[in-house]
Parts: sequence; C-alpha cells; structure tokens
Amino acid sequence: MEQISSKENKRIKTIKKLLSSASFRRKEGVFVAEGLRLCGDAIKSGAEIVSAFFSESFYAKNASFVQDTASITDQTFLLKDNIFSAVSDTKTPQGVLFIIKTLDKTIDFDKIKNNGKVLALETVQDPVNLGTILRTAEALGVDAVVLTRDCCDIYAPKVARGSMGAVFRLSFHITDDLPGLIGRFNAFGTTYAAVLDENSVSLNDCSFEGAVLAVVGNEGNGITPKTIEACTHRLYIPMRGDAESLNVSAAASIILWEMKK
Amino acid sequence: MEQISSKENKRIKTIKKLLSSASFRRKEGVFVAEGLRLCGDAIKSGAEIVSAFFSESFYAKNASFVQDTASITDQTFLLKDNIFSAVSDTKTPQGVLFIIKTLDKTIDFDKIKNNGKVLALETVQDPVNLGTILRTAEALGVDAVVLTRDCCDIYAPKVARGSMGAVFRLSFHITDDLPGLIGRFNAFGTTYAAVLDENSVSLNDCSFEGAVLAVVGNEGNGITPKTIEACTHRLYIPMRGDAESLNVSAAASIILWEMKK
Repeated sequence: MEQISSKENKRIKTIKKLLSSASFRRKEGVFVAEGLRLCGDAIKSGAEIVSAFFSESFYAKNASFVQDTASITDQTFLLKDNIFSAVSDTKTPQGVLFIIKTLDKTIDFDKIKNNGKVLALETVQDPVNLGTILRTAEALGVDAVVLTRDCCDIYAPKVARGSMGAVFRLSFHITDDLPGLIGRFNAFGTTYAAVLDENSVSLNDCSFEGAVLAVVGNEGNGITPKTIEACTHRLYIPMRGDAESLNVSAAASIILWEMKK
Repeated sequence: MEQISSKENKRIKTIKKLLSSASFRRKEGVFVAEGLRLCGDAIKSGAEIVSAFFSESFYAKNASFVQDTASITDQTFLLKDNIFSAVSDTKTPQGVLFIIKTLDKTIDFDKIKNNGKVLALETVQDPVNLGTILRTAEALGVDAVVLTRDCCDIYAPKVARGSMGAVFRLSFHITDDLPGLIGRFNAFGTTYAAVLDENSVSLNDCSFEGAVLAVVGNEGNGITPKTIEACTHRLYIPMRGDAESLNVSAAASIILWEMKK
C-alpha cells in the first residue's frame, strides 16, 4: 500500500476537487464516498471502486476492512491522520474514503413496463431533500428514480450521506429531457405531475395500478409547464389550514407511500 | 422610531444572544423571527410582538408594513443596513426582524379528546427535520404537536424558517414527561409508538379512529423504552430492500398522512 505524506500529493488534490466540484465529478465519471458505513455499502453493492484511502489510525483498527478493499482494488493508499483530516469532507473523519465510478444507468423500460413504480425529480435543489427522498424511495421500494440533470448533484457528499447509502442500491437515471422520457413512459403506463392545484386528482383517488411514474418538482417553483403537460395526470395532496405547500421531501414521501403500499 | 447606529447597542447584543442561545430564549421567554414572510406570519397569527427592527433599506421600501407593525408594538427600531447585516442570521438579510413571545401552550385535552389527532416528537435533534415535520403537520391538519424538552429548540431560527411559519399557526406543547402525557391521553384515546419492529401493527392496518396520538423518535435511537411502554400500540411502516429505516421527517410525513386522510 502506497503511503501519502504530503497535502500537495496529486491524489489529495484530486479528492478535494471531486468533493467540491460537480462538473469535475461528471467529467471524471467518479465520485467520493467517505466513512465506514458508506464505503461498506459501496463494497456490498458491487460498485466499482477505483481507489481507496485510509488514515493510519483507521488502518490500525480495521485491518480486515482494509484487506477486503484491497481484494477489490489495487489502488489503496495510506495517509497520515492529519493529511486525511485535511482532505475529509466531515468534521470528525473516520479515516476511510473511496473514489467510485458513477452509478447512474440508462432507464430500462422493459423492466418497469409491467408494474414498475418510478419517481422522477425535476430540479430538486437541496442536497438534504435529495438525500432524504432517495432514502425513502429505497425504503418503500420504488423500481427506479429519474433525476433531471439540473437537480442537485446526486454524487455530492451530502447527498450520499443523507441517503444512508441508498445511492448504491437504488436504480437511478439522469435525464436531459424529462418530458421526452415521460412521453415514452406514457406508451405503457400512467404518469402523474404533483401540483398544488385542487382541480387535479386528489392523491386519495389515485389508483397507481400498472406502471406508474410520479414527478415532484423544484422547492420554490414546482414542476415546469412542459413536464406537467407531458404527464397523463396531475395529482395534488389535499391540505388544510394556511399552509401553502409541503416540503418536496414530505410530498415525495407521501406519494411514494401511496404508490407502493 | 428609535435609531440604532452602533453594534455595541444593548438591544443588538440581546438579539445575537437570542439567535444563538436556546437557554437564553427560554429564560427570556422570547425568540427571534426574521424576514418579511415569517414576520408577516407572526402578525397575522396574532403572536405577541415585543419589539421590531428594520434596516433603513427595508423601511424605505416597505413603509406600510412598518406602519402595521408600529400599530402592534411601540418598540420599533431603525438600523443602519450594515448594523442589520451584522445581527442577521441569514446570508442576504431582508431587513426585518421581530422579537416575539414564545408560543408554546399547555395541551388542551378537552379540545382533542373526541377526534383529535396529535403528533408527538421525542428527542428529534435536527432543526431541518423539525422544521419539515412542523410544516407537514400544519399542512395535513393535526390538532396539536407535542415535543419533549430535549428536542431541538423549536424557537431556533432554522426551525421557524424551515417550518415556513407553521410555528405561528400550529398548536404545540413542550413536555418534560412524555410517558405521563401519553398515560393521560390513553384515558380517552389510542396512542402509537412508531418503531422498526415488524411484529408491531403495520401502518396499513392502523385505523386511527377517535382521538389518536402518534410518537416518532430520535434520528439515531428512535423512541425510548419508557415511552414505547406508555403507548397502547406500536406501529411500523413496512419497508423493503436493504434500507434500515426512514428519515424521521419522512416517517412523520407518512404517519401524518395516514392519520389525517
């Protein structure tokens, strides 16, 4: 295992850039996962681990984890604790960090066209919301998640952490043309745009039989008119009182629950 | 309207302390709301506004709002823009900030004992979770929210903002003895502890008729054994796959939806 003892090391600089820049992640086709739990999830899920970095303290305490990792990738590196702390995205680093190949896949319509349930996210901006939605989507068992390209980057460190590793287990797809994708879905299923208009179908009256795709939208602006028009249905979650809307992660949780129960 | 032109002004120091210290808020019995939307919600809800602070720019553009405020409190203050920025909790301050009497009330069992729906939160720690839960609780129309004293402070700036003003419209109660409160609720209603145990009642099988109180717990540890024992029922949200649990705000959203639909 190669030792890294300088903050000026090229690999250290690459990790920092991967942590901070979505465009660099996209260009390189890799992202960073940090911590024993997330890195363990990455191994279990069969994700392609490009390289692995351990602090000296971590190595001393977790020899078997390091060995498991070394059996998957020959790119393993040992960092002095202070070097690891300097590169870590967390306040109290555990001392393990992987660079992993990005995980998004082309959506497989053949797999979902019978009874598949899909959640689509349009321009969801907040990494906490995105992480929570992915975690809920996995827990309730959707078959795929679709994200527009202008969503908060699913490979941002905060998203992977907030998702509790769901990014490694969920099937997800990033699209530049959500209305077009919805159009193709409509050939075999029904599609719902979640809106705030009470003249739409109440969630209480949605059957969600067969293949279903439901869209939730941006925190401030909801779903774009073009995407709403592409959907076969518009749905709303009945509300009371003076509240104007639900948080997008709350709305997604409730729709996912109804879709999958 | 009195002018404040020094950061050393006593009132400025008080605001800063109120923004940063939960114990100081509790001792003084007041909290801070900032921004046009939240302060407008405070006025509309009839909250007791102790004092109001405006930046010079805000005053120039929102004379009628300032007048409305002055008709409610005679403690109004005009701050130079740079002084307002120094005291603000936000990156781009709008220039309006109120000090408001705390809003928590004693729970009124007479009002809820027929058909009331109550959400109880035990040791929910994250201000984003708490804000989202309060927003959802208001939107779906619960009759009251109960919080244990060791929850994240409901009067923290991030919570009021995240709740989108729901703190001003919801009826909520802070308790030092949740098991005791549940015991008194059991005299006329049913109580549910949300747990991860599949031997409990599935949320799909809960009827939620009559007066109902449901408890969700801490992000890491769930609900304490004492509180679980105090409840008449334990419920779980059926999950799939490798997910271990839902985020507490997602779980609360789904339970609130089932309770109120």
